[in-house]
Amino acid sequence: MSYSMGPLLSRVNSPEDLKKLNPNQLEQFSRELRRYIIDVMSSNPGHLASSLGAVELTVAIHYTFNTPYDKLIWDVGHQAYPHKIITGRRDLFPLNRKYKGISGFPKMAESEYDAFGVGHSSTSISAALGMAMASKLNGDKKRQHIAVIGDGSMTAGLSFEAMNHAGVSGTNLLVILNDNGIAIDKNVGALKDYLLEVVTSRTYNRIRNKIWFMLGGNTKYGKNTRSIVKQIGGAIKGTILRKSNLFEALGFRYFGPVDGHDVEKLVTVLTDLSRIPGPKLLHVITRKGKGMEKAELDPTTYHAPGNFDKETGEIIEKKCSVALAPKYQNVFGKTIIELAKINPKVTGVTPAMPSGCSLNMMMNVMPERAFDVGIAEQHAVTFSAGLAAQGMIPFCNIYSSFMQRAYDQVIHDVALQKLHVVFCLDRGGIVGEDGATHHGVFDLAYFRCIPNMTVAAPMNEQELRNMMFTAQLPGKGTFSIRYPRGRGVMVDWNTPFEEIPVGKGRKLRDGNKIAILSIGHIGNTVSEALNKLALSGITPAHYDLRFVKPLDTVMLHEVMQRYTDVVTIEDGTLIGGMGSAIVEFASDNNYRINIHRMGIPDRFIDQGTPEELFREIGLDQEGIINNINQIFNRNK
Amino acid sequence: MSYSMGPLLSRVNSPEDLKKLNPNQLEQFSRELRRYIIDVMSSNPGHLASSLGAVELTVAIHYTFNTPYDKLIWDVGHQAYPHKIITGRRDLFPLNRKYKGISGFPKMAESEYDAFGVGHSSTSISAALGMAMASKLNGDKKRQHIAVIGDGSMTAGLSFEAMNHAGVSGTNLLVILNDNGIAIDKNVGALKDYLLEVVTSRTYNRIRNKIWFMLGGNTKYGKNTRSIVKQIGGAIKGTILRKSNLFEALGFRYFGPVDGHDVEKLVTVLTDLSRIPGPKLLHVITRKGKGMEKAELDPTTYHAPGNFDKETGEIIEKKCSVALAPKYQNVFGKTIIELAKINPKVTGVTPAMPSGCSLNMMMNVMPERAFDVGIAEQHAVTFSAGLAAQGMIPFCNIYSSFMQRAYDQVIHDVALQKLHVVFCLDRGGIVGEDGATHHGVFDLAYFRCIPNMTVAAPMNEQELRNMMFTAQLPGKGTFSIRYPRGRGVMVDWNTPFEEIPVGKGRKLRDGNKIAILSIGHIGNTVSEALNKLALSGITPAHYDLRFVKPLDTVMLHEVMQRYTDVVTIEDGTLIGGMGSAIVEFASDNNYRINIHRMGIPDRFIDQGTPEELFREIGLDQEGIINNINQIFNRNK
Repeated sequence: MSYSMGPLLSRVNSPEDLKKLNPNQLEQFSRELRRYIIDVMSSNPGHLASSLGAVELTVAIHYTFNTPYDKLIWDVGHQAYPHKIITGRRDLFPLNRKYKGISGFPKMAESEYDAFGVGHSSTSISAALGMAMASKLNGDKKRQHIAVIGDGSMTAGLSFEAMNHAGVSGTNLLVILNDNGIAIDKNVGALKDYLLEVVTSRTYNRIRNKIWFMLGGNTKYGKNTRSIVKQIGGAIKGTILRKSNLFEALGFRYFGPVDGHDVEKLVTVLTDLSRIPGPKLLHVITRKGKGMEKAELDPTTYHAPGNFDKETGEIIEKKCSVALAPKYQNVFGKTIIELAKINPKVTGVTPAMPSGCSLNMMMNVMPERAFDVGIAEQHAVTFSAGLAAQGMIPFCNIYSSFMQRAYDQVIHDVALQKLHVVFCLDRGGIVGEDGATHHGVFDLAYFRCIPNMTVAAPMNEQELRNMMFTAQLPGKGTFSIRYPRGRGVMVDWNTPFEEIPVGKGRKLRDGNKIAILSIGHIGNTVSEALNKLALSGITPAHYDLRFVKPLDTVMLHEVMQRYTDVVTIEDGTLIGGMGSAIVEFASDNNYRINIHRMGIPDRFIDQGTPEELFREIGLDQEGIINNINQIFNRNK
Repeated sequence: MSYSMGPLLSRVNSPEDLKKLNPNQLEQFSRELRRYIIDVMSSNPGHLASSLGAVELTVAIHYTFNTPYDKLIWDVGHQAYPHKIITGRRDLFPLNRKYKGISGFPKMAESEYDAFGVGHSSTSISAALGMAMASKLNGDKKRQHIAVIGDGSMTAGLSFEAMNHAGVSGTNLLVILNDNGIAIDKNVGALKDYLLEVVTSRTYNRIRNKIWFMLGGNTKYGKNTRSIVKQIGGAIKGTILRKSNLFEALGFRYFGPVDGHDVEKLVTVLTDLSRIPGPKLLHVITRKGKGMEKAELDPTTYHAPGNFDKETGEIIEKKCSVALAPKYQNVFGKTIIELAKINPKVTGVTPAMPSGCSLNMMMNVMPERAFDVGIAEQHAVTFSAGLAAQGMIPFCNIYSSFMQRAYDQVIHDVALQKLHVVFCLDRGGIVGEDGATHHGVFDLAYFRCIPNMTVAAPMNEQELRNMMFTAQLPGKGTFSIRYPRGRGVMVDWNTPFEEIPVGKGRKLRDGNKIAILSIGHIGNTVSEALNKLALSGITPAHYDLRFVKPLDTVMLHEVMQRYTDVVTIEDGTLIGGMGSAIVEFASDNNYRINIHRMGIPDRFIDQGTPEELFREIGLDQEGIINNINQIFNRNK
């Protein structure tokens, strides 16, 4: 499928092309760029609203700065589609987030214009500062280093750590704060309130900036301009504006706020700023979803809306005549409400993912007991530890790959103190189109080695529901439950709660010679594979381990004694994960049977549909069947 | 050994006892408490200077607040010795940090007065906020929740995340900022500069606080006092003081700065603050090492000085007639300078541990290429990634247990992009007296599962040196080197650099039937054990693996083919660590030999000397000999 482009966009496939336009053409170019994004994304889903909000900013940056010599780092990367289109990937854009296509995030290996790969939030200032420091060491005073970061990403501790260092670094660093009041959900916290106040009381910023730009932007005053401005600025700063600003307190020069959709103005401002050395912050106000009415009105839904009508913006629901199994996240969202109703200690915590993990359901019906703490995984965990220390039982829901951000807090603040926190790791395993930064590959390995930690993974919705029920029962201590992105397999999952004995697996299917041991949702793929294999007379047994820790040693002794071969299957890393737990067990107990470990290999996996990716790594039905067939034939 | 106590201290063994004193006795009590700490610590080493600086603050808090009903959380816990002494552990204090004694840090399991266990920095505000939220949910409006945090700990992102949430939480939270300009080394960063400016320009804070306390502290104005103060405060805030303060920008009421050594004044201020609801911050100025001249002058050395003369403060050096092997950290410190001299890309990064990891050596001779980024492990890693993206080769030195703080950044910002960053993990393995929070137990397991990552551990100084040399050679990618706290084994370690082939182990001793596979420094214990065993005719072979990733598969095939038993020995977790890598290899290659894994068991290990702890977990010479003897006898 090909997409039409406006006349200006069709001439621009690089920042060099862009620079050939006149400033007064940039507005039209921005319109065409936005139109192209909407057209392509209406049938190639991705992160829509963030990118629509960053069109003019992106155009202005590439028009003003000398990328890729100047280093431009997009925080998170949801907003980087206009950047990708301008920097040589215009015609590849329909392959965005597709298998063997281009990544949905900036990626160093993909383009020299992607100065730093992203996906997780709040890394941009640290990375840009590292680059700026390298330039300083290399004696390169010309190079600009630009981090574009949203107000949501700014709440994560990593951003603050970087600002604290940058403020005294004396490097050539420009932080552009892309303030739209929204992360994926509405941004929360004191910083958001503060930014709103800044925006609504612009007076003194305006006075100061006016003087600065009036004199500084105009060179006819000659060489002394800078020092005059500095003196005036210093005087103002020394009196009523003294440390008036959060960012100035951290050693940044603060500019703004400016309208992030006025592209010509942005070019002027950026040009001025490019002449000011040292760390500086430009506060830009944008509207997430800009230029598409429905997205502007509901930016959370249009963060990643799927397919939609490119004219009206109407989201196109896939029609389906049969009832679909629910998403795991909704099973979490509905179940925690039920549990909170029967157990007053149950609370919910999410770091800025209420709609992503469905805690928003609980936030709607019992807002006082469900907390969105902002993009702050570390705080989410230690805050949960504090709640638990006072007798609450928090369900702290963090995506598997984001839980990497709070690893120390899980060990040091929760598990070491045996606190009763339930970690729910959504997006465990292959997530699909978000690619390498977002696959939840490592959690079984990195949680399994933590003492006092229960590590569970449900195979279906009912199991998830019952594991959540089990986890909040008295005395259960530190408990983790991981489950994948997307839908489960049960339409009728909402059965009465049943306790699952901790550390007990279950036998799903009797068999002979070969036993399959699976953990979590991938057990369903195993079941289907075994159904097919049975047709050719191959009948392995199937066990669902349920708990990677503690292991069901009774079941494992049975397995090790009854079968000649064991196949372990997990959608997590092969190194140190569930399969490793099984070979440790076999080795420690002197079993000499063949163990075949299947899981995610020791490399980062790029984007694609889950089906494509599971096929690539041999964890689809066919891969499992082939592996079992080989074992069967070898043993004949 | 018993210690004399002043007359007041001998009457006080609980906050209840303390409250029986008159306010005008608190100064003398503080003097006695300080004297007791100095006396005991002169021969029972621990964290001296921080605790000396917090004496009056601790006395004032326990005198004013109703602990343990009110929740008091000490950040990090270095400063908590006065707290331990006041709260029932006065007579146990000589057992501080000793095996089976009391922990050097607050610990929930040890005392109800230790509201939250600590050790790593910057958790206190999150935890206190969690508790405050629990109180709010429980309808308990009386309970106070107090976090005492140093200016160093305030730089870590976790603190900022917590402040951002606390500022809008409406909970009863008091953050006491214990500002002494020092973490372990001198504090760095923009926040430090900011705090200094606040302290040196007190005027407007003083005006506002004076009005507040004048009216608010005195109830004779009746019920309307609060609202009058609020109006006046609002008016001031609305004009010249509008958002004048970093902490007010984050939604806290700011008070201070006050003298942290004026105990009676502190009691007055804390009493006033206890009546003000909502999140508030009290800025207290203290002197680290207060009351001991040498410690005040050199707080970094006196952070944990070892034994010293209790009258003069003179540090007592252990006399030793033979030359000692160097500390590993100093091998790092000296070697990185040598490498930086031959390779202009080599740079050094530490998050606030320059003296702890010996990067201070490089900071002295080439300050522009060695960076102390403050307590900010996450930023240290992503900043290193930025440096590497621009061609530098940073050596990022982070203690093993603190590296847990930057796990996501290692995966997402460095390894995924195959950036050439060298992670040096000091304090790998059992660290001794710092106990459970500080042992570097998990790193081999949590690093081994990361793709693109080389995981190495040297057995001695020369190996460390050569691994560092190897790691900075072109094309080596993401590289990690872990080594323990304390001294190595080689006096003459400073040999010419030699490249170590990545993924190549070495055979140290030929033998028969049994092969020992060790990784890292513990290999020296193995060597000694094998020397003893040889006397009784038991002669296992000994291999030093050197690399947990990539594995030396050639060597491992040899080992698996030549011996009947393999013993793996590591000072890291048994779950998922080096031994697991070996059983994975054996299983994947269908070897059926006996593998006996020795390592750190699946529980948190408390404090003690390394010798005591290695004995407890069977990883001392005797434990290794016993295990090999058993295997030998079983096989006879």
